[in-house]
Amino acid sequence: MKHVLHTAQAAAGKAAPRIDIGRILHPHSVAVLGASDSIDKFGGRIMHFLIRHGFAGAIYPINPRRKEIAGRPAFERIAAVPAPPDVAILAVPTGQLIPSVEEAAEAGVGCAVVIATGFAEAGADGEQRQASLVRIASESGMRIVGPNCMGLIVPHHHMALCSSVVLNTDTLGDGSIALVSQSGALMVSIFDRAKTDGIGLRYGISLGNQSDLEICDFLEYLAGEPETAAICLYIEGLMNGARFRAAAARCRASGKPLLAVKTGRTEAGVAAVRSHTASLAGSFEAFAAVCREEGVVLATDPDDMVRAAHFLVQHPGPRPPGIAVISGSGGGTGIASDRLTELGMPLAALSPTTSAALEKMLLAPQAGNPVDLGGRRQGEEVEISDQATRVLLADPEVGSGFAVLTSMPFYARRAGLIAAAARDSGKPVAIVVTPGAAGNPARHAVREAGMICFDRFEEGLSVLKLIADHDALTRISRDRPSRPAGLPGKAALAGLVPGPQAESEVRRLLSGYGVSLVGERQATSTEEAANAAREIGFPVVLKAVSRDIMHKSDLGMVRLGLRDAAAVTEAAREMLARARVAIPNARLEGFAVQEMVRGEAEVIIGIRHDSEFGPILVLGLGGIAVEILRDIAVAPAPLSRTAVHRMIAGLRTAPLFFGARGRPPLDTDAIADVVERVSWLAADLGSRLVDLEINPLIVGTRGTGAVAVDLRATLR
Amino acid sequence: MKHVLHTAQAAAGKAAPRIDIGRILHPHSVAVLGASDSIDKFGGRIMHFLIRHGFAGAIYPINPRRKEIAGRPAFERIAAVPAPPDVAILAVPTGQLIPSVEEAAEAGVGCAVVIATGFAEAGADGEQRQASLVRIASESGMRIVGPNCMGLIVPHHHMALCSSVVLNTDTLGDGSIALVSQSGALMVSIFDRAKTDGIGLRYGISLGNQSDLEICDFLEYLAGEPETAAICLYIEGLMNGARFRAAAARCRASGKPLLAVKTGRTEAGVAAVRSHTASLAGSFEAFAAVCREEGVVLATDPDDMVRAAHFLVQHPGPRPPGIAVISGSGGGTGIASDRLTELGMPLAALSPTTSAALEKMLLAPQAGNPVDLGGRRQGEEVEISDQATRVLLADPEVGSGFAVLTSMPFYARRAGLIAAAARDSGKPVAIVVTPGAAGNPARHAVREAGMICFDRFEEGLSVLKLIADHDALTRISRDRPSRPAGLPGKAALAGLVPGPQAESEVRRLLSGYGVSLVGERQATSTEEAANAAREIGFPVVLKAVSRDIMHKSDLGMVRLGLRDAAAVTEAAREMLARARVAIPNARLEGFAVQEMVRGEAEVIIGIRHDSEFGPILVLGLGGIAVEILRDIAVAPAPLSRTAVHRMIAGLRTAPLFFGARGRPPLDTDAIADVVERVSWLAADLGSRLVDLEINPLIVGTRGTGAVAVDLRATLR
Repeated sequence: MKHVLHTAQAAAGKAAPRIDIGRILHPHSVAVLGASDSIDKFGGRIMHFLIRHGFAGAIYPINPRRKEIAGRPAFERIAAVPAPPDVAILAVPTGQLIPSVEEAAEAGVGCAVVIATGFAEAGADGEQRQASLVRIASESGMRIVGPNCMGLIVPHHHMALCSSVVLNTDTLGDGSIALVSQSGALMVSIFDRAKTDGIGLRYGISLGNQSDLEICDFLEYLAGEPETAAICLYIEGLMNGARFRAAAARCRASGKPLLAVKTGRTEAGVAAVRSHTASLAGSFEAFAAVCREEGVVLATDPDDMVRAAHFLVQHPGPRPPGIAVISGSGGGTGIASDRLTELGMPLAALSPTTSAALEKMLLAPQAGNPVDLGGRRQGEEVEISDQATRVLLADPEVGSGFAVLTSMPFYARRAGLIAAAARDSGKPVAIVVTPGAAGNPARHAVREAGMICFDRFEEGLSVLKLIADHDALTRISRDRPSRPAGLPGKAALAGLVPGPQAESEVRRLLSGYGVSLVGERQATSTEEAANAAREIGFPVVLKAVSRDIMHKSDLGMVRLGLRDAAAVTEAAREMLARARVAIPNARLEGFAVQEMVRGEAEVIIGIRHDSEFGPILVLGLGGIAVEILRDIAVAPAPLSRTAVHRMIAGLRTAPLFFGARGRPPLDTDAIADVVERVSWLAADLGSRLVDLEINPLIVGTRGTGAVAVDLRATLR
Repeated sequence: MKHVLHTAQAAAGKAAPRIDIGRILHPHSVAVLGASDSIDKFGGRIMHFLIRHGFAGAIYPINPRRKEIAGRPAFERIAAVPAPPDVAILAVPTGQLIPSVEEAAEAGVGCAVVIATGFAEAGADGEQRQASLVRIASESGMRIVGPNCMGLIVPHHHMALCSSVVLNTDTLGDGSIALVSQSGALMVSIFDRAKTDGIGLRYGISLGNQSDLEICDFLEYLAGEPETAAICLYIEGLMNGARFRAAAARCRASGKPLLAVKTGRTEAGVAAVRSHTASLAGSFEAFAAVCREEGVVLATDPDDMVRAAHFLVQHPGPRPPGIAVISGSGGGTGIASDRLTELGMPLAALSPTTSAALEKMLLAPQAGNPVDLGGRRQGEEVEISDQATRVLLADPEVGSGFAVLTSMPFYARRAGLIAAAARDSGKPVAIVVTPGAAGNPARHAVREAGMICFDRFEEGLSVLKLIADHDALTRISRDRPSRPAGLPGKAALAGLVPGPQAESEVRRLLSGYGVSLVGERQATSTEEAANAAREIGFPVVLKAVSRDIMHKSDLGMVRLGLRDAAAVTEAAREMLARARVAIPNARLEGFAVQEMVRGEAEVIIGIRHDSEFGPILVLGLGGIAVEILRDIAVAPAPLSRTAVHRMIAGLRTAPLFFGARGRPPLDTDAIADVVERVSWLAADLGSRLVDLEINPLIVGTRGTGAVAVDLRATLR
């Protein structure tokens, strides 16, 4: 057997991989360890589904107690099969698993799919078991999918390498959407829901604990596979943030929609994924920021995600944001109008041509957007369902449609006409049939017309929202951050000591990167402080300098608006006295005297190191906006100025930057300049930077600049 | 025929109603105008469904061209029927409708149900038609349901007085939840969805344009009917806010859950309801505030509303807020944990007893909340689905449950066990079966166990959220606002002139109601102003007094921090000069000199008259919180102090009131005192008050009081 070799990994002290992802997804031969005839058992169901769905390669059931399983000759051991199989799936109990995996590795298996649970997610014993798996993979070059996964479903390869009861069907469907999920049970449930919706998937891949092969191994493959038109991910934890980001960028560059549900957004979610696949989630804020930057659409529900992907494959977009609403019920249009608005999706303003055409069919108050088919001019004219839908959806301002089909006379016929008109429109239209069993004929008609049928308002709305999110992300013109001229090279960052930095050191760093700083002089005595103040010009700010005192304001170690030398001297003396009382062992290294800067607003800029994605920049308006209301914008560093402007525009307090209620607009260009420079400093420092904060950056009105006042940084 | 008479309406110059709501819902006889044999026609379907569902009273088909319809003798005219029917339903075209209604009124019909559209919702002609309906009802005492409705469904009375195709079923179901909906198509769709869910409704009532009988006529009846256990409303516009409020209070007093979906929350929604049932929506903010005050649970989706009502009837609550999560999939528990947290529903912290019991069945990391059944100690033990669910739900901290059933081996059996355990728990449990068709056996098992089965995470979540909202509203101890001692009687408000009030007049009013005001003296010249300032003590604030100048600050007509008499004189002169330039015809009546008040924070208190609910009070923190971030609390006046404290606690900026991040706590008692007094002033002024604003109320730290500074009011 010949397997493609990856020399990079081999060079890293690991055995070269025996098989690549493409071959794992399209194996020529499969062994089933723990195969059985009983579909009540994992190994029985796997055999049954492999055969039922017509896997065309060799199937080797392995079971020492059987001569034949499911009509195929069984093998006592994996080493006994005629040739090393591309893939072996192990349906053996956790206790026997490690020896079986070793056996598979020795027998030359390309990739082992490990279903068993009881690994890193199951406490210390399990962690050790998982470490053994990793070791085997690394030493042998046999790849491992799992453990704690449910295998792979590849319809176009007629391969159902998975034990789930959802495979107990006649067909697997097929399509162009790939689904990669850490959770196996979710993967098969999503797979089945999609099939029932009429959405075929190209792949259903479950990865469990990602002991060896991880999401990015598959994401990279799928990003490069022409037949995959969209990719949906269910992620509990990423193994390598940079790799994910690069793969996402590749999808975006090729116009391939990438959608993700990421669990671990809250503390409770983080705990859940830790106990599920032992995944360690980085900060969700950082993940979301990277997704925004790379055009990854974030969903909260996995079925929504697949449905949105389906529409995006059919209608790549982006399209105008306006939504057209059509319903047989005024109540339906009312609920739809409110909810669309609440979710930030505007109803399309129709052109006069469209309105005029609608008025030929409908009474004036109903002949707009939303269209209420109840307002038709002629009593029971069924056909206007068709005509009105076509006219409405053809309007150039209409990007997508929302059809709410409550109960109507001639229900199925009308539903079918509306669905066909929606299908022919070339725009994504979410069709909702709201009643219970009485809606089934209408549902049938919608599906017959080739459209997805939703059961509830919110289902349709959330899919439309994901499409709108996708379009908004797509519309953003991406300018890769480019290094501003005149920044020092990384050499300038040599020789930094770890730990909290003296403010003067942070000043030196920022100043080197071209950030405007408030005028400041250092003083080592009260007299020097008074002299420095005279040179700067009154009023001044006096601050104690001490690496040991973190919250200087709280201890009275910062005094604003000192108006003359006497005031400076007195304030300095007080600080010395207070420092002695408050923190007896604190070294008071001296004083910093600063000019008093006045501006229109204070902005906070923070950077912290995220374990998955490196330096992440946070921006917000000083005061309650950040402290109490958490109105912040987050983005990965480095950043372009355009990206900073986008961050500002996304804040709830954005109006204050642009001049709300008679206030003058702030110098957002100056903010963007500072943020860009700071983001490059962070990028250059890389993993050495723990955190850095400018609080405040005092910002003036447009054209007057921005000055960094208080600075703080910690390095490792 | 004897009908109960309402003398109140008779006294108001209207004919006494011929029939009461109870009899309309349970008529002894029904006439169908426009009856037909064809179920393709409205009149045919109505006849068909009346008979099919076994209406036991007399049925009179009216059709001049037929001798017999659906096996019953037909009548040429309604006057020809043996006795005036309790209810007549009119399935006649809009053009013939008014004469038919007149005929019905003359024939002594108790109540006419008008299905036809083309009334107030359809422009000027329709408005006139609707006015005719109202006149007939008023002159004759015949009640009217509709127009633009779909009739009534009363399962326990075996009455399907409605043309909807959803009635084309063997049974109507039956239950204890009443549904009242302005939209007919929504009503029948919700009715059918509920039936499919296994939720029987006691009533399905559609009201359309509410030309005569309106939501409150039915709400009042249902509030008093013992067999109705919960009430669900779909509202586009209320006819009488006070009546709604009183009926809601009655439901709350009797512990009868009242839930509502209100359309018209956004501009687009308001436009939609206007074109649908010609409903004029008041401010949704005011409606929501009244609902909070009266314990009405607001939903956005009508099916969610009915499902929540179903759980609330079974499990009245309130219950502990903790939710228990159980799933066969770690991905399911992960998504559930994140979403519950994001929606403000905490996962229950289990008692040590519960955890210990779970650990006997599950591995330690999975033996908590959420329970991941994938972590079972024994391989394929199906029974632990039952045991674990029972143990988990029995925990006293668990108020409700969320079971996410992704695909599992022995799916139906496990789903049935979990559903039975959930049913037996005595707690509401939302059970979600997520796959598509492969989930159907599990769905069947869940329903067989007597539980509702949801298809998607979000469906279950939104119902749990409504239950949590209900419990939160129920838990609030309601103290009816009681008039503080020492407030003047309404006589004190005599003699007020309409229009914008002079600030001195607003001072007089508020001071009379016991609100602390900033010290102020009036002056008519620059000299008097300087003298007044000396008496008050420096620094002072100087303001121009003029009813013609609304935005004084913007025009430099307010000057803060004047430190001596000279500064006051100069500022007053400048104002005189500026006023002449800025608003040549403005009368400058003089100056107000105020003491400079310093406090910890500024609060804005506003009152405006809502067309539905009268004076509505708005409260928020001055500055960007209110202006930019719309962080406001809203409640109907008058208010108890407890209610004000609740308003404050509900603000996003609440931490600032209670002393966040080292700030001292504000004097919230003083705020509550002022708001209470202002709310009584507003209540006493009633509809005379257009609006009133205190901006700012300067609030000190706890115990130091609050002082109203700038005041504004307009009366009509």
